[in-house]
Amino acid sequence: MAHKKKGSQTVVFEKKPYIIGRGNIGGKKESEGPLAACFDQLLDDDMFGEKSWEKAECKMLQTAMERAIHRAKLKKENIDIMLSGDLINQIMTSSFAARDLHIPFLGLYGACSTMTESLVIGSMLIDGGFAQNIMASASSHFCTAERQFRMPVEHGNQRPTSAQWTATAAGAVVLSEKPFSIPEGMRVVRATDATIGKVIDAGIKDANQMGAAMAPSAVDTLLNHLQDTGRAIDYYDLVLTGDLGFIGKDIMTDLLIDAGLNAEKVYAHYDDCGTMLFSKDQDVHGGGSGCGCSAAVFTGKIMQQMEQGKISRILLMSTGALLSTISSFQGESIPGIAHAIALEVE
Amino acid sequence: MAHKKKGSQTVVFEKKPYIIGRGNIGGKKESEGPLAACFDQLLDDDMFGEKSWEKAECKMLQTAMERAIHRAKLKKENIDIMLSGDLINQIMTSSFAARDLHIPFLGLYGACSTMTESLVIGSMLIDGGFAQNIMASASSHFCTAERQFRMPVEHGNQRPTSAQWTATAAGAVVLSEKPFSIPEGMRVVRATDATIGKVIDAGIKDANQMGAAMAPSAVDTLLNHLQDTGRAIDYYDLVLTGDLGFIGKDIMTDLLIDAGLNAEKVYAHYDDCGTMLFSKDQDVHGGGSGCGCSAAVFTGKIMQQMEQGKISRILLMSTGALLSTISSFQGESIPGIAHAIALEVE
Repeated sequence: MAHKKKGSQTVVFEKKPYIIGRGNIGGKKESEGPLAACFDQLLDDDMFGEKSWEKAECKMLQTAMERAIHRAKLKKENIDIMLSGDLINQIMTSSFAARDLHIPFLGLYGACSTMTESLVIGSMLIDGGFAQNIMASASSHFCTAERQFRMPVEHGNQRPTSAQWTATAAGAVVLSEKPFSIPEGMRVVRATDATIGKVIDAGIKDANQMGAAMAPSAVDTLLNHLQDTGRAIDYYDLVLTGDLGFIGKDIMTDLLIDAGLNAEKVYAHYDDCGTMLFSKDQDVHGGGSGCGCSAAVFTGKIMQQMEQGKISRILLMSTGALLSTISSFQGESIPGIAHAIALEVE
Repeated sequence: MAHKKKGSQTVVFEKKPYIIGRGNIGGKKESEGPLAACFDQLLDDDMFGEKSWEKAECKMLQTAMERAIHRAKLKKENIDIMLSGDLINQIMTSSFAARDLHIPFLGLYGACSTMTESLVIGSMLIDGGFAQNIMASASSHFCTAERQFRMPVEHGNQRPTSAQWTATAAGAVVLSEKPFSIPEGMRVVRATDATIGKVIDAGIKDANQMGAAMAPSAVDTLLNHLQDTGRAIDYYDLVLTGDLGFIGKDIMTDLLIDAGLNAEKVYAHYDDCGTMLFSKDQDVHGGGSGCGCSAAVFTGKIMQQMEQGKISRILLMSTGALLSTISSFQGESIPGIAHAIALEVE
């Protein structure tokens, strides 16, 4: 049965929950990036016909969730629990989406680690027999995040080169105990085990150095995961962090090699969603970030490749920076967190 | 085994997870209220020796968690997962407490419903075999919440009579699959089933009318719970909402009677933590609120009464108002949510 070894951070799923539906949506900048073809829908206006960015993000999250439900050949009444979070204060996007969808709702906050947090909790609840179908989702929006964490966009503030660009994107999956809706010939993605991360604080105080702030927690979670499971990094076709960006990915790579991992294998098997969503000539400086970054990359390019059998095993590790403007104003450093979920096709 | 009937919002626990430790702490106003004797620790200065209210709240949450771990006769290394949330943007209190305690952390946001949300998720994860010991906790602080949601305290703003008083309090429990540390002669509290709530929006836009905004969601969750389990309200010695306060409790009572519940039984078996934490002469107007309200009342008076065998079965239903200042500024109404967990002594 489902279990967790004493002293281990990793839980093992007996039923190996299935991802039976996925959906995502991206904004204008995402439509100009290298992964444009991997989105279900792309916006040419990030307001999405709404009166505020926050309402636009909420509509994006709902759109991604509805797409996932549609792909799963379900109705929203079939979803037992919605797990979701975002970056807006009091997870406004998720709460209002839950109001409109009217699905029993458990709100999460893990900053940009939320997509993996929702997948991990969702898989445990399916595996434990507490639901037939669970929605796991996350979203972010460049303009809502800038307003929230940094400067009003209208201010035209100059961004340092280490700053990352919050993805205007949402992603959602339907987790299920049964694979009934998978089309013939398509591989089905299943969750096999997961590692719940600890909060690690490397002492970084600069909110424009998110990759550096989060990389140590990603290293800690990955090393714990590999130790708990007895696997090497090349067990996975791809180990994928959420949004360390170009700088954080380099730090992560260095730290993994310092920790004794084989350098060639790290180069061959490790990548970061924040370095994939945008190309460097899109003026995104440090790369992509935000809950929507790993949510959209995973529910797009990665799941497409798994369904087509191009890759078989991945470890998704969305990474979160648990700062608030209040903590920064009070001189606190930025705590990081990373959860990991192992997914494989059969 | 653990299960959930199709179409039901309620999950049933097979192992009936045990609460093997509890801890709480309250502020100065709480020390002057009717439940003062039910706290493990009371502050005579809500700064708790820290430089900011936020840091004080974080220290309070940690203190409550350490007390719960101590009562459970465990060390923090024995806690597999920490589930926690609070009202500060980006759940700053919980994130920084998780950093200092170094326990694998899943951050939650359910506004003032968080104590029950953490108990519900924690019980599912114990019941599903994903952890031996889980910390479920929540906190709030009057001064951090006022700064966050309303006016700076220094502003000396006049509060309308419907406004509620955010509890300066934290509460935590250790959930476990085994009852090994319960002292001789003391009854042990177990979780039997839980109902995950939907977000209900009654259209209230006034952030000083929280009870009215949350009561409809509490009614919805309770009616679903009773229907799913086939129980009447008097199955429970006490059905306890989180922080509807004096006004919200009256609305809830009326709505339950309107829905066909026996009025005498509602009066005899239903109460609200927000009406219990403070006395009316403490100038709290609408009563207590905040994540810490139900967290402290439950881990104090209620668990004491259960351990002593004075009451045997309760339904704890912390209630949350899922507003943010942004949503209010944008003219949105206040969505409410309530989760329910049934607890009994053996």
